[in-house]
Amino acid sequence: MVHAPERPVPGAPPVRINLYSDTQTRPTPAMKAAMMEAEVGDEQHGDDPTVHALCDRMARLLGKEAAMFLPSGTMCNVVALNTHCRNGDEVVAHESAHILSSEGGSHAAIAGVQINPLRGPRGMFDADALRGAIRARSRYAPPQTLLEIEQTANTGGGAVWPVEVLNELTGIAHHQGWATHMDGARLMNACVAAGVPADAMCAGFDTAWLDFTKGLGAPLGAVLVGSEDFIGRAWRWKQRLGGSMRQAGICAAACLYALDHNIGRLAEDHANARAFAAGLRQIEGMAVEEPDTNLVYFDPTGAGMVPAALQSALLAEGISVSALGGRLRACTHLDVQAPMIGEALEAIRRIIRH
Amino acid sequence: MVHAPERPVPGAPPVRINLYSDTQTRPTPAMKAAMMEAEVGDEQHGDDPTVHALCDRMARLLGKEAAMFLPSGTMCNVVALNTHCRNGDEVVAHESAHILSSEGGSHAAIAGVQINPLRGPRGMFDADALRGAIRARSRYAPPQTLLEIEQTANTGGGAVWPVEVLNELTGIAHHQGWATHMDGARLMNACVAAGVPADAMCAGFDTAWLDFTKGLGAPLGAVLVGSEDFIGRAWRWKQRLGGSMRQAGICAAACLYALDHNIGRLAEDHANARAFAAGLRQIEGMAVEEPDTNLVYFDPTGAGMVPAALQSALLAEGISVSALGGRLRACTHLDVQAPMIGEALEAIRRIIRH
Amino acid sequence: MVHAPERPVPGAPPVRINLYSDTQTRPTPAMKAAMMEAEVGDEQHGDDPTVHALCDRMARLLGKEAAMFLPSGTMCNVVALNTHCRNGDEVVAHESAHILSSEGGSHAAIAGVQINPLRGPRGMFDADALRGAIRARSRYAPPQTLLEIEQTANTGGGAVWPVEVLNELTGIAHHQGWATHMDGARLMNACVAAGVPADAMCAGFDTAWLDFTKGLGAPLGAVLVGSEDFIGRAWRWKQRLGGSMRQAGICAAACLYALDHNIGRLAEDHANARAFAAGLRQIEGMAVEEPDTNLVYFDPTGAGMVPAALQSALLAEGISVSALGGRLRACTHLDVQAPMIGEALEAIRRIIRH
Amino acid sequence: MVHAPERPVPGAPPVRINLYSDTQTRPTPAMKAAMMEAEVGDEQHGDDPTVHALCDRMARLLGKEAAMFLPSGTMCNVVALNTHCRNGDEVVAHESAHILSSEGGSHAAIAGVQINPLRGPRGMFDADALRGAIRARSRYAPPQTLLEIEQTANTGGGAVWPVEVLNELTGIAHHQGWATHMDGARLMNACVAAGVPADAMCAGFDTAWLDFTKGLGAPLGAVLVGSEDFIGRAWRWKQRLGGSMRQAGICAAACLYALDHNIGRLAEDHANARAFAAGLRQIEGMAVEEPDTNLVYFDPTGAGMVPAALQSALLAEGISVSALGGRLRACTHLDVQAPMIGEALEAIRRIIRH
Repeated sequence: MVHAPERPVPGAPPVRINLYSDTQTRPTPAMKAAMMEAEVGDEQHGDDPTVHALCDRMARLLGKEAAMFLPSGTMCNVVALNTHCRNGDEVVAHESAHILSSEGGSHAAIAGVQINPLRGPRGMFDADALRGAIRARSRYAPPQTLLEIEQTANTGGGAVWPVEVLNELTGIAHHQGWATHMDGARLMNACVAAGVPADAMCAGFDTAWLDFTKGLGAPLGAVLVGSEDFIGRAWRWKQRLGGSMRQAGICAAACLYALDHNIGRLAEDHANARAFAAGLRQIEGMAVEEPDTNLVYFDPTGAGMVPAALQSALLAEGISVSALGGRLRACTHLDVQAPMIGEALEAIRRIIRH
Repeated sequence: MVHAPERPVPGAPPVRINLYSDTQTRPTPAMKAAMMEAEVGDEQHGDDPTVHALCDRMARLLGKEAAMFLPSGTMCNVVALNTHCRNGDEVVAHESAHILSSEGGSHAAIAGVQINPLRGPRGMFDADALRGAIRARSRYAPPQTLLEIEQTANTGGGAVWPVEVLNELTGIAHHQGWATHMDGARLMNACVAAGVPADAMCAGFDTAWLDFTKGLGAPLGAVLVGSEDFIGRAWRWKQRLGGSMRQAGICAAACLYALDHNIGRLAEDHANARAFAAGLRQIEGMAVEEPDTNLVYFDPTGAGMVPAALQSALLAEGISVSALGGRLRACTHLDVQAPMIGEALEAIRRIIRH
Repeated sequence: MVHAPERPVPGAPPVRINLYSDTQTRPTPAMKAAMMEAEVGDEQHGDDPTVHALCDRMARLLGKEAAMFLPSGTMCNVVALNTHCRNGDEVVAHESAHILSSEGGSHAAIAGVQINPLRGPRGMFDADALRGAIRARSRYAPPQTLLEIEQTANTGGGAVWPVEVLNELTGIAHHQGWATHMDGARLMNACVAAGVPADAMCAGFDTAWLDFTKGLGAPLGAVLVGSEDFIGRAWRWKQRLGGSMRQAGICAAACLYALDHNIGRLAEDHANARAFAAGLRQIEGMAVEEPDTNLVYFDPTGAGMVPAALQSALLAEGISVSALGGRLRACTHLDVQAPMIGEALEAIRRIIRH
Repeated sequence: MVHAPERPVPGAPPVRINLYSDTQTRPTPAMKAAMMEAEVGDEQHGDDPTVHALCDRMARLLGKEAAMFLPSGTMCNVVALNTHCRNGDEVVAHESAHILSSEGGSHAAIAGVQINPLRGPRGMFDADALRGAIRARSRYAPPQTLLEIEQTANTGGGAVWPVEVLNELTGIAHHQGWATHMDGARLMNACVAAGVPADAMCAGFDTAWLDFTKGLGAPLGAVLVGSEDFIGRAWRWKQRLGGSMRQAGICAAACLYALDHNIGRLAEDHANARAFAAGLRQIEGMAVEEPDTNLVYFDPTGAGMVPAALQSALLAEGISVSALGGRLRACTHLDVQAPMIGEALEAIRRIIRH
């Protein structure tokens, strides 16, 4: 959850180095050219060949039968919760999960479900925590029907859930008769960092999704995958939520472009993040979490500066980072090149020294 | 409600003359060029200048304080119902309204409201019908809180609600303390046909929206307008539904292009529709509803052919029309030129004669 | 739906002849004695022997496997809709059904379903109307999952649905894969009037319920019946709604008493209703619906008096009737004896003559 | 939350000493006599004088303007959450609150709200914890609109929230613009134990309720209090949930009797609880929580016996206690006299020694 100013701060200079979020990447000319050439049709009538091509490819990539194109990752979660669960059910997730903190209470407001918030370091929990959350069946307790995992764990520091842990957790869930759902907002970052293919990473999950607007650089869109039966039922929720579009192939083309060109390069973002963390660690008193992927969480309090003050001072120099939970977060992505990392570190050192 | 095949019929020839729906227009090269040149930003952080430009312009056009960009017209309705109403409320609308027939029960599933379905010819009702629907206040009856009008009335034959009727109805609603909402899927068709400016047409409504994917020819997007306060509260629902996007300016640019280029020409669609209706009427036994705008409903039963048979026969010739409620519908739009109308009439005459 | 004053009219004399509603019967000394002697326990822990006895008996009477005791008939409907349906589903019912008009929008507010309101005389519809309401399967339309019938049809004049019609309608519904639910608020009136045993009357229904606070004379309580599986799932909703009670056997005892003593005598109520209707019909200009059971709807307008005026004038004499939908309703029950009918007719004649 | 067997264990002897729950008290002959003499009417039409008398008295006792009779305490919570909140809101409560653990997910399923679960010893939290839970206003986060407190904290050991703490917490909440609601299932136990009048205890709360089926010994019923405006709006939810009854005065009479006779004697239950805790503490290895009121939580593991085994062994001797969260709970109430405490302790010592 990023408590962002909902409008840019008036009077701030243009942002030169955007470490705020990988959601803020802009489509490149090449990506836009691909969009322009896309063959399109009426997506909600099943008539858009580019959307079909993207769905077919994503189903194969994540190892599922079918896929659905949606305007956002949040909508993938909303569709999945509503399709998997009935109102009154309970979903088990980490207490820092996006579905709990950043979707405006949608799980309760729309799906009518409660989330049982598990704890654990770095946005993750283990098999014991999951087993401890299983409720005895009772008329008083809500039925538990879904395990939800966010890969990578955003506010856990972009941490990568190891595939062995995922397999163990999903095994426990399926043994209980629950469904399993992966919020894959930054799934490809996890796959690249861990060297695990996406279909293996998702093997234990009934449904999963990938967001194309983060490190993959597309302007909008996410793809939800699952069984044929699930996606068929999910269509009703796509319609109910207003997620059915028309000539959406123009946007799907950007996603196809991203699959071709922007996955391998995530390793670069991770290297930039590690370099940034290493630089920060040389500042005395700076608390830094070692990044698994492209998110670096750090706290300058020990170096004599409150986080909000450092954030503002950086913004005044055209460098944006985000603040959440009393920490700062720097995010690397395709609009951030290695020299910018050095420049940002230099600025931080200068500001702190004052 | 168009009971469309959800996938195209296998083996059918390519559609040459698409009278199926104005939702199936494809973006023109000029519109795509505008999209490519758009300046973009993170729309959900209030950072996208093209989305801002579109919202500002739409607020002015429809005469309201503020506006919100959403991926679809259905989502405009879902956001509006959830923002105007609490669960347990009642909305008053025509029994043929899109919110009742074509949104998968979203008003009940998400907003928790019931719709009181008024009757009346051509998808419209009058002041007496509205007054007759006002419930005595009682613990047993749901509170009535919203009047909803669809302009034009799609399954009513694309009929245009006269602005005087709208003003009378919204006056009654406001007197009761209800809010008023216009589903303006084809609002500009109504404005062009009636020669009434959009802000005057919407004057009695607290909220209204315009769909850009129909006669206006954009690939996706709709804009909801209302007071600053309303739009502020509506943002929560945009988030909850997953309607917040990222570099959405690329799509908003197509909408701005449409406002500049595709409104005046709706008159051409209306002329084509009238010509089609006139041609149909010359076929003996053909029942034809006189079009107010770009939708022509007709029933070939009296001419010796069941609607579905005529639909199939036309499709076999590359001409698509839609079927709903036992009738056929032909829709004119920017991909339909006058000669195609003649060709389609010729095909119908030929098929009927057999 | 009875638009009742929610508090008694100040200054009105005590009601001597209560034709307002059979819900206003008061427990007799013998019924109260049965309540006092009841063995009780913790109902929500399955510990109350009197509740068990009532449930066992009701399951047998209506020919189902299991039963559940609830504080009201409305809650039987709410539990049933929530257990049968998912949010977004559609229920098919008559437009005058209690679930649509008199439960405060609960079907949408809690269950998230919409009701497709069928029309037909006397609160009933036939097989053709039901067949006409079946929707083609489509992503745009809500799934239809439940047929609901109210036996007797209250605002239809207390009309009795013939068992053959019920069997035909439930057959059609089951063929579509829908469940079937009977709102049996006055089921025993229907059974007595038609001479059909309750289990035969309910044979086509998956679930049904009987209200004990109407003609049966108990102070509170209703029993919902269905399969073991259904009732097991329904318990969750009983808990969620707050319908689980503690030593509820004290109330269940009144219901058991009613089953023993107050069913046969419903025939008397029906005879009183017919006598009242016959008497009314002798007043020139009085419009009177012939009663099937214990409800007499009449309209004095043709006799020169608006309904509300007659209602007030009667109340001033200690005689209460209800007003709904522009008509008056007189209801016979165990607190109404034959001489009161004569007295009420006499009063009406006198008032009208003035 | 008591994970009770939902049906009694077959073959177990009758329970002689019921320490299972104060919900299992049975109405005494004197209470039943009061019920029989009650004057009754149609409660949902505002016609039941005994219900009115109870509501008037409860409003005065808890210091609010108005009151509403409901069949259960759970329904008081459901009505209050639905009346205070809109779907998508967040309620702040302790993680052990009844609304979160024991109402089947009703807050999400019906009201569409999420609960932010605060932590703290003995089922309570302090001002710092509450301040820490206040969210920055953001489109991503649900609006926070209600503080909920359970007095006494059941699974916190029947702990009494000090009135000063309540005043501080409700002050913080009101400063944020939130409403405040007290789940007063065992409110009178808190008042008697703390020597604080009920109206003072509830002074900071907009709404509160008292359950009559626990230590107060009535068979069913609870009363929710609040402002005239709140109770007026709450009636819609009473109707929607099916909580409107008919001649409910017969049950309200038991509650009036309880107010007259069963409050002062709660001190006796508390003395019995302290005596039981003192006796348990003399058993080596027994972990015992000091009771504030009538609930004694203890864990025999350190004394060499797992909780479930001790529970079963006691049941075999006709002594019932409940098990929850890995501990045992003994509850004193008006069916438990001092000698039974000695007898139960004697049985536990005997069983443990084996």
